[in-house]
Amino acid sequence: LDFFYILDLSGTLAFAISGASVAMRKKFDLFGIFIIAFVTAVGGGTVRDILVGRTPAGWMTDLNYIYMVNVGTILAILFRKKMAYLSKTLFLFDTVGLGVFTIIGTEIGMSYHLTPLISISLGAISAAFGGVIRDILCNEIPVIFRKEIYATACLLGGSLLIFLTYIHLNKNISYIITIGLIILIRLLAVKFKLALPKIKSD
Amino acid sequence: LDFFYILDLSGTLAFAISGASVAMRKKFDLFGIFIIAFVTAVGGGTVRDILVGRTPAGWMTDLNYIYMVNVGTILAILFRKKMAYLSKTLFLFDTVGLGVFTIIGTEIGMSYHLTPLISISLGAISAAFGGVIRDILCNEIPVIFRKEIYATACLLGGSLLIFLTYIHLNKNISYIITIGLIILIRLLAVKFKLALPKIKSD
Amino acid sequence: LDFFYILDLSGTLAFAISGASVAMRKKFDLFGIFIIAFVTAVGGGTVRDILVGRTPAGWMTDLNYIYMVNVGTILAILFRKKMAYLSKTLFLFDTVGLGVFTIIGTEIGMSYHLTPLISISLGAISAAFGGVIRDILCNEIPVIFRKEIYATACLLGGSLLIFLTYIHLNKNISYIITIGLIILIRLLAVKFKLALPKIKSD
Repeated sequence: LDFFYILDLSGTLAFAISGASVAMRKKFDLFGIFIIAFVTAVGGGTVRDILVGRTPAGWMTDLNYIYMVNVGTILAILFRKKMAYLSKTLFLFDTVGLGVFTIIGTEIGMSYHLTPLISISLGAISAAFGGVIRDILCNEIPVIFRKEIYATACLLGGSLLIFLTYIHLNKNISYIITIGLIILIRLLAVKFKLALPKIKSD
Repeated sequence: LDFFYILDLSGTLAFAISGASVAMRKKFDLFGIFIIAFVTAVGGGTVRDILVGRTPAGWMTDLNYIYMVNVGTILAILFRKKMAYLSKTLFLFDTVGLGVFTIIGTEIGMSYHLTPLISISLGAISAAFGGVIRDILCNEIPVIFRKEIYATACLLGGSLLIFLTYIHLNKNISYIITIGLIILIRLLAVKFKLALPKIKSD
Repeated sequence: LDFFYILDLSGTLAFAISGASVAMRKKFDLFGIFIIAFVTAVGGGTVRDILVGRTPAGWMTDLNYIYMVNVGTILAILFRKKMAYLSKTLFLFDTVGLGVFTIIGTEIGMSYHLTPLISISLGAISAAFGGVIRDILCNEIPVIFRKEIYATACLLGGSLLIFLTYIHLNKNISYIITIGLIILIRLLAVKFKLALPKIKSD
């Protein structure tokens, strides 16, 4: 599980950087930048923990999450002018975070004996809800509802993980395969501009 | 309680349809439509469950709620061009949902030995908060704060239910009377364009 | 603790007045005004209680909080034309609320054996999150992220309280000193137009 914990902290770091970058674009002050980084990084996991009744929430009993958010915020501020060049690195980090949080949420759902469908949903909530809270706090319609294949990747990844658990594949290998699938889906989605169909009412 | 459960699922279905309709108007993608339908339908009950510490939240342990949201989303998409003609049907469904969720929330409050005032508030939260979350996610000021007699109907309905419980009226009959009152208030509010007064500061 | 309870109710009253004032400017109806007053006053404490798993939330088991919100709403409506003249009084009330809620949140964090850093964060969440929810419901970017030294005052106040607890100073005296510091920081911030730096990305 050491491997898993490192992935978890990497995901937190990646999401913190992405949150801080959005907050700087919005001209928030230093505190606002930190808070947006914080909710982007831990918001999804917190909602997940509250939903299953797992309190105090994870970041409240392990300071490493807070440290990761601080490091992410500082990195985002220091390298703010290079973010354009780093966007591919950022995208990869963000996608790793997506994969990791999907796995953690799905695992927690299963450990609470929730059905596969709900466990997968918990995985998607863990991965995507931080970004939703970030967008709400920035007074924007959550980007996830409009154009990203983001949540689809989580849902397919979570489904794969449930299947791999069902056939008793080694956990660490299952995690790597799941993250691989999620990265693949996002890369393909960006490359081929895949998106879910929109349905307009009149 | 079978009767009650059916009402609960009908309310979930009605709220899912109403949520999906709003999301389509906002041009969300398929996933966004489903999520907005979902939070509109189960959001109020989830907030209620979290507030009283009743976790995992209801929809996490009974898949029928998810099925209802799916059915509601599909119906809203299929009949999106007929929604204008169906608006009266929708309004009735929505009002039944309002009544049912008010009753469920108020009952849960009483079962947790909360005071009548707080139980009624829980009823209103169950009924109205799904719509509030829907509006926040769609980046709009919640409609309930501006022009609907919506919450008033919940509060009066909840109060009536507390009274009927106090005089030990048969539960199912109490529920029907309460829903009846809530429907009546909303119909009258629409017919006579009733609204709460606004108070402007300078 | 009687002294503390009175402070708590005063803070609730002050925040309710501030919430109701914002809602009137937004032309909400009577119900909307009450709800905004309510979430501003109890929202921060509710989020705090949910995060540590302290449910039902405080206001659900002690009606005095609801009464304070009602009194605050009525006062804000009655004196809405005099609010401009009363703005200094309001500012003081609001700052007392800030100080009190910071202390309560920090104390609860310590009583749950959370680390000092997390306890201070809980204090800041208690004090500031009601305003964040108010701004979200009013469809505005939370003011706290953009220009106030608000949260900084909470964080410094919470840190001081932890220190005073560590040296075993009498609790009531610690509370008064902490509130004093928070008031002082806000007054200085307003007088000298202090603000945290903004960091713009390109």
